[in-house]
Amino acid sequence: MHKDETKRSCLAIILAAGESTRMKSSQSKVLHPIGNRAMIAHVVEALSGAGITEVALVLGRDAEKVEAAARHSAVHSETFIQKERLGTAHAVLAARGAIEKGYDDVLVVFGDTPLLTAAPLQAARAGLAAGSDVVVVGFMAADPFGYGRLIVEDGELLAIREEKDATPKEREIAYCNGGLMAIDGRKALELIEKIGNANAKGEYYLTDIVEVVRAAGGHATAVEAPEEELTGCNTRAELAFIERLWQQRRRTALMLSGVSMIAPETVFLSHDTQIAQDVTIEPNVVFGPGVTVESGAVIHAFSHLEGAHVGLGATVGPFARLRPGANLGAGSKVGNFCEVKKAEIGEGAKVNHLTYIGDAFVGAGSNIGAGTITCNYDGINKHETRIGANAFIGSNSALVAPVTIGNGAYVASGSIITMDVPDDAVAFGRARQENKPERAKLIRERNAAVKAARKKAAE
Amino acid sequence: MHKDETKRSCLAIILAAGESTRMKSSQSKVLHPIGNRAMIAHVVEALSGAGITEVALVLGRDAEKVEAAARHSAVHSETFIQKERLGTAHAVLAARGAIEKGYDDVLVVFGDTPLLTAAPLQAARAGLAAGSDVVVVGFMAADPFGYGRLIVEDGELLAIREEKDATPKEREIAYCNGGLMAIDGRKALELIEKIGNANAKGEYYLTDIVEVVRAAGGHATAVEAPEEELTGCNTRAELAFIERLWQQRRRTALMLSGVSMIAPETVFLSHDTQIAQDVTIEPNVVFGPGVTVESGAVIHAFSHLEGAHVGLGATVGPFARLRPGANLGAGSKVGNFCEVKKAEIGEGAKVNHLTYIGDAFVGAGSNIGAGTITCNYDGINKHETRIGANAFIGSNSALVAPVTIGNGAYVASGSIITMDVPDDAVAFGRARQENKPERAKLIRERNAAVKAARKKAAE
Amino acid sequence: MHKDETKRSCLAIILAAGESTRMKSSQSKVLHPIGNRAMIAHVVEALSGAGITEVALVLGRDAEKVEAAARHSAVHSETFIQKERLGTAHAVLAARGAIEKGYDDVLVVFGDTPLLTAAPLQAARAGLAAGSDVVVVGFMAADPFGYGRLIVEDGELLAIREEKDATPKEREIAYCNGGLMAIDGRKALELIEKIGNANAKGEYYLTDIVEVVRAAGGHATAVEAPEEELTGCNTRAELAFIERLWQQRRRTALMLSGVSMIAPETVFLSHDTQIAQDVTIEPNVVFGPGVTVESGAVIHAFSHLEGAHVGLGATVGPFARLRPGANLGAGSKVGNFCEVKKAEIGEGAKVNHLTYIGDAFVGAGSNIGAGTITCNYDGINKHETRIGANAFIGSNSALVAPVTIGNGAYVASGSIITMDVPDDAVAFGRARQENKPERAKLIRERNAAVKAARKKAAE
Repeated sequence: MHKDETKRSCLAIILAAGESTRMKSSQSKVLHPIGNRAMIAHVVEALSGAGITEVALVLGRDAEKVEAAARHSAVHSETFIQKERLGTAHAVLAARGAIEKGYDDVLVVFGDTPLLTAAPLQAARAGLAAGSDVVVVGFMAADPFGYGRLIVEDGELLAIREEKDATPKEREIAYCNGGLMAIDGRKALELIEKIGNANAKGEYYLTDIVEVVRAAGGHATAVEAPEEELTGCNTRAELAFIERLWQQRRRTALMLSGVSMIAPETVFLSHDTQIAQDVTIEPNVVFGPGVTVESGAVIHAFSHLEGAHVGLGATVGPFARLRPGANLGAGSKVGNFCEVKKAEIGEGAKVNHLTYIGDAFVGAGSNIGAGTITCNYDGINKHETRIGANAFIGSNSALVAPVTIGNGAYVASGSIITMDVPDDAVAFGRARQENKPERAKLIRERNAAVKAARKKAAE
Repeated sequence: MHKDETKRSCLAIILAAGESTRMKSSQSKVLHPIGNRAMIAHVVEALSGAGITEVALVLGRDAEKVEAAARHSAVHSETFIQKERLGTAHAVLAARGAIEKGYDDVLVVFGDTPLLTAAPLQAARAGLAAGSDVVVVGFMAADPFGYGRLIVEDGELLAIREEKDATPKEREIAYCNGGLMAIDGRKALELIEKIGNANAKGEYYLTDIVEVVRAAGGHATAVEAPEEELTGCNTRAELAFIERLWQQRRRTALMLSGVSMIAPETVFLSHDTQIAQDVTIEPNVVFGPGVTVESGAVIHAFSHLEGAHVGLGATVGPFARLRPGANLGAGSKVGNFCEVKKAEIGEGAKVNHLTYIGDAFVGAGSNIGAGTITCNYDGINKHETRIGANAFIGSNSALVAPVTIGNGAYVASGSIITMDVPDDAVAFGRARQENKPERAKLIRERNAAVKAARKKAAE
Repeated sequence: MHKDETKRSCLAIILAAGESTRMKSSQSKVLHPIGNRAMIAHVVEALSGAGITEVALVLGRDAEKVEAAARHSAVHSETFIQKERLGTAHAVLAARGAIEKGYDDVLVVFGDTPLLTAAPLQAARAGLAAGSDVVVVGFMAADPFGYGRLIVEDGELLAIREEKDATPKEREIAYCNGGLMAIDGRKALELIEKIGNANAKGEYYLTDIVEVVRAAGGHATAVEAPEEELTGCNTRAELAFIERLWQQRRRTALMLSGVSMIAPETVFLSHDTQIAQDVTIEPNVVFGPGVTVESGAVIHAFSHLEGAHVGLGATVGPFARLRPGANLGAGSKVGNFCEVKKAEIGEGAKVNHLTYIGDAFVGAGSNIGAGTITCNYDGINKHETRIGANAFIGSNSALVAPVTIGNGAYVASGSIITMDVPDDAVAFGRARQENKPERAKLIRERNAAVKAARKKAAE
């Protein structure tokens, strides 16, 4: 018996073949996102974190999509289709081909438990290494009603007792079956095949393995994990509950690392959000995937970031939207009702009001006036706008790409810029104003007369 | 005795004559909204849901407005004004004219309990049908302190004991008076008239009816309802609390029906919000009244919808505002910092950035550039903008209504469009650009010189 | 012994010399804001509220900034630097110079307890006035684990027992040391100097004063305060927790005073936010510092206000941003995607869509069209835009400041206005439109041909 479980080979079987009926969804539940990543990807990430590299996916509905979502650079996975649904033991046997390869440890996990971390997986494997044939991961339930109770005596797991079969005494036990299980890989097939289906539904339940292993003179034990980590997902209400727990976990980790959040419960993170120390995040900020924020930056309220980089001490929002490819230089500012997409905003540059910057390069120190639009799309192709350093774009200008505004150039307010502007030049592109005296008064009088006539006619 | 309460005639008396002093409000508390509908309208809706069609409104402050707010297509209601405020029994007697019409059942409910559903009303009426003269609706209080305790023995309600009159033993009772009551309609007037006012405040309390009915050899019983349903509202803090419970109820119902909400606690629904299965709602979305969303649509973060329809698979936001009359076709998109009002957005059409579309029709497949404004108002009248199919409106354009842009037409960026554009034509409406070389440099130099001179002068 | 503590002189010593290591911050924790005001300023405000005018600040890190943040118009404060950190008693002794001035009462408070109010301070001083030499402020801990327990017998505080030194019986005590302490000012130095450092860390703990005073035959007592008020802050997660409690306190106070909040947990207030009765605040509103809102106003969802005044019955948002100097007249409206900065919006004026109004004056009854921009900045200076009463600014106009639009004047949509517009005049400032028939079709065909050719070449 190897005492060091890290030397033991391991196969993890992820059960994800369910119909997800109660999700009322057009896709399998394990594809639904938590922190903007499919649930099953979180499970694979936890496996990888525990050093597990071999995975068998037992799939049914949406198998191809689930397989794609479960892909992980450090994990090799093989797919098995469970055609009929005859219980969890039957599901595990769908991966017979993988189990037969002969691993020291076989872990059975569920595809809908995205809050799982490496710790319970490692604890369960340590149980095998210490001589158990089966290790069940349990949890102390806040409300045990409905869960299978773990009957443990002298360190031995005697049974998993379902609610309906439990004595009143046993119902007082709060230690419950969390679903996750580790099985001695050399005995796994033999044990699981002994599980019968003599029950009301005629299904093969993996939990019966405890009985089987004990009948065969083997050892079953239990290890405890936090209830949260084993939370499964059957409805969209549970999905939202898991998302909330996941967000809390990430927010707290960020705050403890030196990020200020005035109202953490209103900040929504993605699985890959990276935020440095001494960043302040105001209420109501949404981080889509792919965002990094450097130290000293301030993300003001009502900001939405996705695929964006925010440089040292830069300021975002309120009411800013950074889309993929937005790259904000140190000390730059993107302000209210501004959208930045696939664009560099140079050091100290300012894009402060009601502006759209797309497919563009804004030089350091430049100031983009309120209401500026980079016209990057001609209906067929996207074109680039290049603005030099220390340029000034007057308010309400339209920069019709492809176009280049030189260093230190100045675009007059309200200009439509269709040609390049040289360095240090001023560009005008607007009509001359003409005033028509008294005209507004005349319009009002005429309109009043029309209304009066109409009213009279209606009488 | 009719056993089937649905065959029994019923009058519901809604007490809503209070001064609402603690609301510190310029209007009666029952006019304050929950889910964007006056509290009292929720109560009437619950009555209607229980099959009750005859209602007596006992009103005081803001009677006309309350009467209007309580109007319901399936319910006939009559208003009675309570001039003096001498207690709940006195309030009920204000509706004497209705009670005298002779109903089998008389229900007394409160206008400030908008979380009420049909179930407790039906349970109370079933109590009358089973032979009780009075049925009190009670609840198991999380914290009973301050509530009247229901003293029940052998199924008989012996008394409603006020906190101050209760023995220590009675104070341990968690079963409390919820206010709502059903009374045998043939005996109601006689019983209520026997209620005296020999108490500290000299008021007539409806709860004393239990004593009255038992003294007369009649039967009083109690039925239980969830505490939430009986929650009343005296302050704006309680109003917010009730709103929260109401929102939770609706969010959960939607999630269980197949709607995904990443952060349900940040999604605010109205009483008539309709959302189909497989719709995803990101954090921070507000649904005003009159919104319907079809399947597959995504409502991104920070969106505000009111009186709008979102078609199959359409995308809204982030930062979108749909106002009354916005009608988004299948697969269409309304993006950030866009406002749509009284406008059709055709199938697959895109309104993606910083745009105002009002009083307009946008044809299928058309693309509206960033910063486009439909100039629908001339200061006197509103006019219409019609855009054909597969048209392209260049960024930062202004479409001055009334105006029609043809199918396949193309408006150059930055154009002011005041005349119709034929099908397949290109329209320009912008000034020619002129560059003034070195001018920006000169301006900067001159400015620096002025500043230097000022500084020198100041020394 | 003075019985009336208001006649007694008092020195409050604020301990704020900590390194704030666990905050992982570039600044001292007491500088971190709660309700947009530094934590330590809240503590000083509580002292001032309790009538205390003399304060000794014991500072270490960021002493100058902390001193500045602690400045209060009604409080005189003196700074003492604690160079080494040898425990709380040692910190208090840093303020020896102040204590030696001879006060009746010496209060020791902590700079990181921003939820403190005047009440516990007054209660502690009342204890001194009643004859105690030392009064410790305690609280009933929801979870006492880890706190020092207050051992009280017959009204006398016998000891503050640390968790590790407590007997199992003592550990059951929920009454815990809150940190805050009042000491007889005439004996304070003598008592504190007797505190030793014979403990594991070799530090001088102020809590040992109880032992010292009792050994000297003096009296120590305890007074109780709500746990919330004594909450200290060591991490940014605790900072967020304190902010939440603070916000809840303020929101509830506003609601009870007659302000409606549909979702109070999404409304963020500043320390100086003033909102009148009968104001409605929709979900997701952020109040920065310096905002006042008058009665009848409605702040719609997703609004961000800072340094702004909202007049009687005015309407803000959704998606509005009011910046410092925004002053909205009675009945005026600022709508979606609008930013107002340093500008008067006259009575009944409307700024409804996608507009930037900065450094401006908008007259009563004027209507500012969608997409209007006041071009207030020329890259060097800011200039003013003045709009008269009942003027109409057509959509998508740019008003290039300095510029004046007269009363009743009318600016045509899409105009660039660079010159003043007289009263009642109409101003045009836009190019004439030209249509190129069939041009769009030609462009599409040419483009399709280019694509086809490219595709062919690539094969």
